[in-house]
Amino acid sequence: MQTVFHTSDTDAYHTAEAKVRNLLGDETGDIDSVAVVVDRPSVIDAAALDLGETTAALAEMGATVKLCSNAARGADAGEDDFDEGVEFVPSGVGELTRLQDRGWAYIRL
Amino acid sequence: MQTVFHTSDTDAYHTAEAKVRNLLGDETGDIDSVAVVVDRPSVIDAAALDLGETTAALAEMGATVKLCSNAARGADAGEDDFDEGVEFVPSGVGELTRLQDRGWAYIRL
Amino acid sequence: MQTVFHTSDTDAYHTAEAKVRNLLGDETGDIDSVAVVVDRPSVIDAAALDLGETTAALAEMGATVKLCSNAARGADAGEDDFDEGVEFVPSGVGELTRLQDRGWAYIRL
Repeated sequence: MQTVFHTSDTDAYHTAEAKVRNLLGDETGDIDSVAVVVDRPSVIDAAALDLGETTAALAEMGATVKLCSNAARGADAGEDDFDEGVEFVPSGVGELTRLQDRGWAYIRL
Repeated sequence: MQTVFHTSDTDAYHTAEAKVRNLLGDETGDIDSVAVVVDRPSVIDAAALDLGETTAALAEMGATVKLCSNAARGADAGEDDFDEGVEFVPSGVGELTRLQDRGWAYIRL
Repeated sequence: MQTVFHTSDTDAYHTAEAKVRNLLGDETGDIDSVAVVVDRPSVIDAAALDLGETTAALAEMGATVKLCSNAARGADAGEDDFDEGVEFVPSGVGELTRLQDRGWAYIRL
């Protein structure tokens, strides 16, 4: 199974760490992939700086953080501010659609 | 691919315009249909008046605005207050279930 | 069709009663099962006490209330505080993933 979390504010992004941990720690499930989509400029900036530890923790657990390129135009942070495990996608809503179309579960944080 | 946006407050409804534009402008996707479900009386009224431009923009992009008939009982606006591209559905939650059951992706704004 | 509602605050949990009623009352749909997932300690406590009537109404309509065991560790209420129609699941996010993987529609309240 595969799960994508949708986050649009910093609280939700911060919560994603515990949610991914709970998901991967749920022994009744069999999770192959996890992604966290971010579609607001302020949260992209937070993911690079104030919540950089959240981003690092998500990457360490194997989750991919997917940043909306439309939102990124309003953010200060850019590709150079992120390490492995973070990628820019053409649009957050397009990515959420694509993943669900491929069978991923969607959870709004 | 098909996507339904779920909106329950006026900010979310207003945001839907940019989200639908981003979705349709995402060249890596192939979007056949887009809908925006509204399930609160205050947002139905806003869709008719204060955010009428949002409603017009959604319709112009080809998105269908679907208003919950249960919520509409608490709204001032009625069928006569909307143009093409807007329809009343028996229930917002029923429509969201039906669309997902038919393979639509769901995005909560 | 089957629908799972995701609630993380008391307002959303309270709203679930009307939403489930609307869903089951929507004659254009054919709903086989409904669940309400709760993944916050404060909402688990509310479901046991302040919003006990909501919980009873959900159970009476045949919906299953599913409480996240991770969140429950931070709640005062435990298994003894709930009647039939309420169950603890290993994790809320795991349950939301499992249900969607089995074809359930997801609605965030």
